[in-house]
Amino acid sequence: MKVANTIASVRRHIAAARRVGKSIGLVPTMGALHIGHISLIKAARKKTDFVVVSIFVNPTQFGPKEDFKKYPRPIKKDLQICKAGGVALVFNPSVKQMYHSENLTSVNVERITEPLCGRSRPGHFKGVATVCVKLFNIVQADIAFFGQKDAQQAVVIKQMVTDLDMPLKIVVCPTIREPDGLAVSSRNKYLNPKQRKQALCLYQSLQKAKKMVKSGVTDPEKIIKRMQEIIRKAGPSKIDYLEIVDARTLEKVKKIDRKVLIALAVRIGPARLIDNILLDITKS
Amino acid sequence: MKVANTIASVRRHIAAARRVGKSIGLVPTMGALHIGHISLIKAARKKTDFVVVSIFVNPTQFGPKEDFKKYPRPIKKDLQICKAGGVALVFNPSVKQMYHSENLTSVNVERITEPLCGRSRPGHFKGVATVCVKLFNIVQADIAFFGQKDAQQAVVIKQMVTDLDMPLKIVVCPTIREPDGLAVSSRNKYLNPKQRKQALCLYQSLQKAKKMVKSGVTDPEKIIKRMQEIIRKAGPSKIDYLEIVDARTLEKVKKIDRKVLIALAVRIGPARLIDNILLDITKS
Repeated sequence: MKVANTIASVRRHIAAARRVGKSIGLVPTMGALHIGHISLIKAARKKTDFVVVSIFVNPTQFGPKEDFKKYPRPIKKDLQICKAGGVALVFNPSVKQMYHSENLTSVNVERITEPLCGRSRPGHFKGVATVCVKLFNIVQADIAFFGQKDAQQAVVIKQMVTDLDMPLKIVVCPTIREPDGLAVSSRNKYLNPKQRKQALCLYQSLQKAKKMVKSGVTDPEKIIKRMQEIIRKAGPSKIDYLEIVDARTLEKVKKIDRKVLIALAVRIGPARLIDNILLDITKS
Repeated sequence: MKVANTIASVRRHIAAARRVGKSIGLVPTMGALHIGHISLIKAARKKTDFVVVSIFVNPTQFGPKEDFKKYPRPIKKDLQICKAGGVALVFNPSVKQMYHSENLTSVNVERITEPLCGRSRPGHFKGVATVCVKLFNIVQADIAFFGQKDAQQAVVIKQMVTDLDMPLKIVVCPTIREPDGLAVSSRNKYLNPKQRKQALCLYQSLQKAKKMVKSGVTDPEKIIKRMQEIIRKAGPSKIDYLEIVDARTLEKVKKIDRKVLIALAVRIGPARLIDNILLDITKS
């Protein structure tokens, strides 16, 4: 496995892989790799010949009061995970390497960046979209792999790639969960044992929503109320958002009559946790 | 020469050229090709193996009161010029083909898009930057060629390519002029014979500025006043802007002590004409 810290070095490795006809897969990450990332690496290895993992804690997608500084950076462990996973190249640039120029340029995606995480994290998706364009341009992958856990991010990146005619495909892989159902996240580390137990309420509320939809409930408000109850009962928390939206436009639905995304963000202790499910009533 | 109207068709032609090891050059245009464009095509042919000319009058870079509808579209003549110039592929998409999706995504370049043309054409460079990213992603050229006549556009595109790590080089070619000095432009067609004669004042004022700088004048205000006199004397017009700015940052200079851009936009009759010169006092 190769490790590149510079853009120039990545380009050389990619050019060499291209010369021998290899297809390129990219798994963009902020490091602190867990089984969620490993599932993305596995998917990338299945679909492409040369898998690149980028490890970059991108400052421009963190708000001024967010956890940029304390975000975990266990680079040694991350490299071990990549090596064990059969990754061909890790791109681990410094902030200075990624933001080498004056950076007057940003990529903005309207509308679908406004609800959900966009509301409580202004500027977040502008940072995400811009760094992804940069990473896509640096690695020039055929396919980039994202997790369904960051549902809005996946919708935003797909829209951006389509709108800008970027020459790559986006594959979204299922959310990976702990045995009890909690969505795996680097931010789960922030939880103490009590909070960890409480955090299960996100998953439980989503499971309840799924059951209600399957039993024929089509009123989003009814479902949201029930989900809120489950979360409040579990312990002290702050619901950032809890919405049922159209899976593509991310606009609130008045009736569950199409493919919907049920998504929520809940602050429990020091952690802001997100989770979601996609439900396609037209297919059940 | 091939002509492609769809993105898919361009990608096929480019892939075929790549397979036989050809380098790709792109000359992005809005059609109405003239000797300025021909000089770009010549430069592209010198530096790359497979020259693509895009012909697309991009609606998103025109203001609501601008000349989008009446902008000339002599496509037959344009294709003849391309063929005679040794162009390998013309990309001539419809508006629908280029803006096929909902287009929620835009590329914004801050600061350097604000002065000069940016002030009188709000949103113009957002449209230019976004369509160029799309064209670069569609054609995936090694080098794209722009004219120095659109000086601010060249600075913006270069900055954007650097900031977004786009895998191509930008080459800026010299402004092409009529025998009397008027910068060649598709918009010169809008001028009647009297206005055409008057339009020479842009070039004359720039030549005067050059002489003054060479004779040791370092006060921009002094030069700007003299240029304004020349333009006013030539006939009725409206100066949109007339500025002496740092050639890279496009910020006004208080003293001519570095590489500067002297740029102006003047409305004469129905036409808004632009022109500029680069002067590098550190090299003379």
